[in-house]
Amino acid sequence: MLMKTANQSLTEQLAERYADRIRQRLLVPGARLPSVRACAAQHGVSPSTVVAAYDLLLAQGLVQAQRQRGFFVRESIAPRSEPRHAAPVPPAQGPINATALIRGMFHQVSDKPQPGMGVFPPDWLESTFMPAAVRRVASTRALNETSLSYGEPRGDEGLRRVLAQKLSAISVPVDPAQIITTVGATHALDIVSRTLLRPGDPVMVEEPGWAVEFARLAALGMRILTVPRGPDGPDLAVMERLAEAHRPKLFVSVSVLHNPTGYSLSPGVAHRLLQLAQQHNFHIVEDDTYSHLAPEHSTRLSALDGLQRTIYVSGFAKILAPNWRIGFLAAPPGLLEPLLDTKLLSTLTTPALLEKALAHCIEQGQLRRHAERVRTRLDAARSRSVKLALGAGCRFAAEPSGLFGWVDTGVDTDELAQRLLDDGYLIAPGALFHAARTPSTLMRINFATTQDATFWRIFSRRVGSS
Amino acid sequence: MLMKTANQSLTEQLAERYADRIRQRLLVPGARLPSVRACAAQHGVSPSTVVAAYDLLLAQGLVQAQRQRGFFVRESIAPRSEPRHAAPVPPAQGPINATALIRGMFHQVSDKPQPGMGVFPPDWLESTFMPAAVRRVASTRALNETSLSYGEPRGDEGLRRVLAQKLSAISVPVDPAQIITTVGATHALDIVSRTLLRPGDPVMVEEPGWAVEFARLAALGMRILTVPRGPDGPDLAVMERLAEAHRPKLFVSVSVLHNPTGYSLSPGVAHRLLQLAQQHNFHIVEDDTYSHLAPEHSTRLSALDGLQRTIYVSGFAKILAPNWRIGFLAAPPGLLEPLLDTKLLSTLTTPALLEKALAHCIEQGQLRRHAERVRTRLDAARSRSVKLALGAGCRFAAEPSGLFGWVDTGVDTDELAQRLLDDGYLIAPGALFHAARTPSTLMRINFATTQDATFWRIFSRRVGSS
Repeated sequence: MLMKTANQSLTEQLAERYADRIRQRLLVPGARLPSVRACAAQHGVSPSTVVAAYDLLLAQGLVQAQRQRGFFVRESIAPRSEPRHAAPVPPAQGPINATALIRGMFHQVSDKPQPGMGVFPPDWLESTFMPAAVRRVASTRALNETSLSYGEPRGDEGLRRVLAQKLSAISVPVDPAQIITTVGATHALDIVSRTLLRPGDPVMVEEPGWAVEFARLAALGMRILTVPRGPDGPDLAVMERLAEAHRPKLFVSVSVLHNPTGYSLSPGVAHRLLQLAQQHNFHIVEDDTYSHLAPEHSTRLSALDGLQRTIYVSGFAKILAPNWRIGFLAAPPGLLEPLLDTKLLSTLTTPALLEKALAHCIEQGQLRRHAERVRTRLDAARSRSVKLALGAGCRFAAEPSGLFGWVDTGVDTDELAQRLLDDGYLIAPGALFHAARTPSTLMRINFATTQDATFWRIFSRRVGSS
Repeated sequence: MLMKTANQSLTEQLAERYADRIRQRLLVPGARLPSVRACAAQHGVSPSTVVAAYDLLLAQGLVQAQRQRGFFVRESIAPRSEPRHAAPVPPAQGPINATALIRGMFHQVSDKPQPGMGVFPPDWLESTFMPAAVRRVASTRALNETSLSYGEPRGDEGLRRVLAQKLSAISVPVDPAQIITTVGATHALDIVSRTLLRPGDPVMVEEPGWAVEFARLAALGMRILTVPRGPDGPDLAVMERLAEAHRPKLFVSVSVLHNPTGYSLSPGVAHRLLQLAQQHNFHIVEDDTYSHLAPEHSTRLSALDGLQRTIYVSGFAKILAPNWRIGFLAAPPGLLEPLLDTKLLSTLTTPALLEKALAHCIEQGQLRRHAERVRTRLDAARSRSVKLALGAGCRFAAEPSGLFGWVDTGVDTDELAQRLLDDGYLIAPGALFHAARTPSTLMRINFATTQDATFWRIFSRRVGSS
């Protein structure tokens, strides 16, 4: 509820609230502001206050009015201090908008647990072994050895050795020389797309899927072909038609604990998918980001295929330290050199200090035991969260599993997201997981941050008022 | 000199030596092997041994013969363990070759000081303050705070604050919010090109210039327009013609201690260059990688322009810790959001632990004092190295300055590089600094690694035998 103060009228307060959200990209270019009536009801002010506030935003160049349709966030926000004659900013594009929306998810909107978060809350990841591992590799001698030259282009050799062992444990046979470390799984996926694709190339991606992937491929100028993702894997009939019609070079897939649905690939679909890949001669990049939360026996394409036409990608943001930005890829021998070239062109090498600390955590078995504890805790959180979500009138569009729930709220989640922001909650609306940002009644929830009743009470109230 | 052993004939040894170099990309695709006579003389074997060795390489698919012209490294090396039906490896392309050659520079060919190195030898960078700074930010509490969430998209706030102060000291006025940290200066340049350019766009780059820049722009599908770099700056007449004919959106420049020449921009050229940029409406990315080795009063475009159409890029690989991969960019307010979007798409965030340690080194004045010591040491090394180079019959194509010397040897340096490899020396041939890899008699030397007589004695012998 807004309250008039000595310094700011209600109009100014309301305008500033929306201006902040637009600047922070919590309201993305093209997004529609609430109707005057809805906004007035939501903030407990008169319609004339809302009209005045929207006019202020209009004067500031943050929104534009469309006759009969309402107010929309401007596509390109005029920078305040840009000189008059500066070269123009590149035009806002579809993909940039998706990126913008993801950017919003990096803002700390409040101290509350955030249902839209893509990682565990920090307290879930706290450990004593991680800081101990860093200090272990931070002796003067070790730092001089790791820091003072560019280092090994493929990444720290010790880490690549333990990663190869880890991959063997999930039946992906790989030599340490086939592994390249990266700045998080994001960088690995970026390297793969830049190496295997040229601008304009068609590429198949699962839908729903992770917005950063859609946005990056679009920003690189690729043609995105979406393949519906079901409980057992991608829709192979659609994939076959796309492969025949467009001859894509690459399919990007999260086989295990798919984001946002939590689905895991079945062995049968995996086998037929690899046959299709062979028949139509495309590569597959298997993003196994949620690997640490899944049973070891989960079906992975890289295991069936033996890294022949698959490239395996994973990282440690979901289980150890999101900010360390350590990811890696394991690739067929014939692709290693061009992939390594792309790593060099993008970052030269990667920081060995953190790679060595991670290697130590894995080698000592600490990471494995930590992952087991996190999984147990997640199982309990998931069952509480599922009960609360069902109690709040939601339906699960996918069997609850892993870190994320894929929830049907029955209302437009883009609009719901804006309303919940007023309560200090950031949710991940379904549109974020569609290449075309199609409005949706779905949302992705993080089971670790939605296990207490407070959020769901406010959620129900906001759904009810829509 | 090769010596026959019980296990390997001279032929096998010679073939293996070349095979290793081809696999390690010290001999790049398209490179010509020495003539049979030259190779025989060089290795002290008979011409028939060389012919047999080249035949072995031919049989292994590593080289191909061209009638009347000799043996050449094959464009695409057939991977050994690639399955028969795997999708084809992307075709080797011009830019990949340049990358390959740079990759060669990451190989440790021997324990000798390497004339072709792009950084200081590790012992030049050793300090007690760097390890102390890491341990200072590696307490359990600090690590939990920095590691367990993705962190700030722009980069560590403390680091951005001290970087803004550092930029003020060189007359580049900037708000910490205009700074984005990156995975080394390489990543910063990558982010700038991906944000400002679309595939197919023309972009102006200085020539000679740094091979990674040529290779990255080519790999991104940009059209490279080269502008000759002279002692005072880029050739403005050429630049004007290119700007009129092609309307490039970006010019990539190393203003201060240009790589490989050591040239620094004059105030007059800087002023006229900025006028050209305004007139033809292009942005400039100013790569100030060698900033720490240059006087504070050096002319920088970003200082004259006040970051209106310039983007400033720098890093710490040349003065503190090459493997930390910390770089940054400072950009006009209107470009920040799209640049930040690109950072997110490529690596999400960057590791805060190392950024905090760096901030501490700068804040305490330790980095500044360290840089002064390194500069003093480099001055002494440079004068020794210059004397030796002149004594070995070289001519300096540019006034010796900074870390690199740009030296005319009088012989083809691509061939010279192959001969010196036999002695355990990796040099940086002039072709590496030309977009088209034009053969050249020039080479870039690192003053820190060429200050003793041993290299120059062997150099003279190899030049004499060519």
